[in-house]
Amino acid sequence: MAQIRREPITRMWVVITDDHPKGPSDYLAFKPPYQMQEPEGPCPFCPGNEGVTPGETFSVKTEGKGWSVRAVPNKFPFFHIEGDFERRPEGMYDLMEAVGAHEIVIETPDHHQNLATMEPVHIEQILFVYRERLMDLERDRRFEQFLIIKNYPGIFNRHPHSHVMAMPVIPRRIDEEIWGTMDYFHRKERCIFCDVIKEEISAKRRVVLETVHFLAFCPFASRFPFETWIIPKVHAPDFHRITQEQMEDLSVAIQSLFICFHRLLSDPPYSLTFHTSPVKSPFHRSEYHWHIETRLRIGLREGFEWGTGFFVNPTPPEDAAAYLREVL
Amino acid sequence: MAQIRREPITRMWVVITDDHPKGPSDYLAFKPPYQMQEPEGPCPFCPGNEGVTPGETFSVKTEGKGWSVRAVPNKFPFFHIEGDFERRPEGMYDLMEAVGAHEIVIETPDHHQNLATMEPVHIEQILFVYRERLMDLERDRRFEQFLIIKNYPGIFNRHPHSHVMAMPVIPRRIDEEIWGTMDYFHRKERCIFCDVIKEEISAKRRVVLETVHFLAFCPFASRFPFETWIIPKVHAPDFHRITQEQMEDLSVAIQSLFICFHRLLSDPPYSLTFHTSPVKSPFHRSEYHWHIETRLRIGLREGFEWGTGFFVNPTPPEDAAAYLREVL
Repeated sequence: MAQIRREPITRMWVVITDDHPKGPSDYLAFKPPYQMQEPEGPCPFCPGNEGVTPGETFSVKTEGKGWSVRAVPNKFPFFHIEGDFERRPEGMYDLMEAVGAHEIVIETPDHHQNLATMEPVHIEQILFVYRERLMDLERDRRFEQFLIIKNYPGIFNRHPHSHVMAMPVIPRRIDEEIWGTMDYFHRKERCIFCDVIKEEISAKRRVVLETVHFLAFCPFASRFPFETWIIPKVHAPDFHRITQEQMEDLSVAIQSLFICFHRLLSDPPYSLTFHTSPVKSPFHRSEYHWHIETRLRIGLREGFEWGTGFFVNPTPPEDAAAYLREVL
Repeated sequence: MAQIRREPITRMWVVITDDHPKGPSDYLAFKPPYQMQEPEGPCPFCPGNEGVTPGETFSVKTEGKGWSVRAVPNKFPFFHIEGDFERRPEGMYDLMEAVGAHEIVIETPDHHQNLATMEPVHIEQILFVYRERLMDLERDRRFEQFLIIKNYPGIFNRHPHSHVMAMPVIPRRIDEEIWGTMDYFHRKERCIFCDVIKEEISAKRRVVLETVHFLAFCPFASRFPFETWIIPKVHAPDFHRITQEQMEDLSVAIQSLFICFHRLLSDPPYSLTFHTSPVKSPFHRSEYHWHIETRLRIGLREGFEWGTGFFVNPTPPEDAAAYLREVL
């Protein structure tokens, strides 16, 4: 069973998966230049191969046309649904079993789509599936944090899919945001994200686009070239409390942003993460403000960043936003 | 002039370089599969081309044989030596000019070496140059943090080189370690790194090698497959106070570790960072314990990690250390 271990100095949680531990030979193929290796044989996410994946947890179906979005448990999960949630010591260290949920959302029957080529009405269905899965997972009172992540292209399969996870600990980046948010609230009795939204709308230079309910902007201290956040303009701690009307609006914002990326950088690889408040009391924070962070996987500075947590970005966010607005 | 900007929510510093801001066209060539692009024309770091680099700040020379290690200012620095150290607001945000030092240490005249193929006596000369440069930079009382980083292969040039930097802010990862160290010290009046060393030597399973003065081990909550730290066994906050005898010993430890990596993973790409205490009072911490963190640039999980600061490692450190010891 995989473990979640606490790094004793910085107190960061790390998952050590040992279900299929990887030895040196597994990495020999993995040196740069990296090549995406499509799995051999038929794609398990394509229509007709539904039997290959574990049973659906949820799906959107159109009458006479089959499914358009499916959620299934991940066959190779980081977190297992069965296991012991108790934390325990090992020598001076802390660990627990890697219990949680890890599902795959198969975003479309079409193997060759991405967020720039999907219709907003389809993106809305994906958001709907995310929301339904989180609403269901929320009933399990053992989870502390939800996470939705999409990589394009996927690491092991190009078929458009995303990861929906529920985990028993709060990841470092979310934890840092929560503490920063609470600290600001105690000083000002205002949400720092709401203040950032006001600042950005008034400064204009880093705004990419604005819809009725959402703002997309390149943050002031962007860690990555063309880093863009999509955030609800009205304060809301939890993604999964989003309304139908907001989902419609968000799907337009998402499609527009990814069309910009596509036009500007010719089908770039990207990652996107939903940041949402921890779910379990007392960790749930109404001061928190959910949002989506997007990063294009371009540029090559990783050595500097992993060692220090200190980012160097050669594309000022004001320039990034201007380029993106230009192709809107 | 490049800026250092503070991310308002998590309060992390980010460098935004705008000396040569990069637009979309600069990234079009940078999509995976990444290929290292050797600069065209003669290598500026090879003997005979010394005139191409800015003037040496320090070097080790052998009589009749020319230089064996050279330090020169970086032509494309993240931090500039001239500028204003004052911090200032911009709207709700905080920023300062990116002032500091950024030098390149050209590690050998030979274009095709790496830490696995160099003799310990040569690695010792590199360590000596690092130490001399930091001792010199320490006289400039404006710097808060030193950083030594090596990428193999280099991002833009394969010739073996490393970066020595002095910066006016403390990077996030070092900051987290400092706070973790101080918190532990206040509770226990012991250094957490010293306790980790004792724990690892007694547990044995994660130890790769031990020399007179140094321990190399795969940390309990390794973020990366085969992550290995090299740490002085006796408490010491600052790398640049290392003695001649310790440098000799460390160069053997470094060579041995990289020979292991080389044998196990066939010349893998890697990054290595020296973590050392902030230099300037009141940030200098005698509770801190300097060390080297190494990461092999193998594996492909970046999407998950960047978004959350939550790492998933498919190679348990106990396995990693066993594999490494086996090829020692």
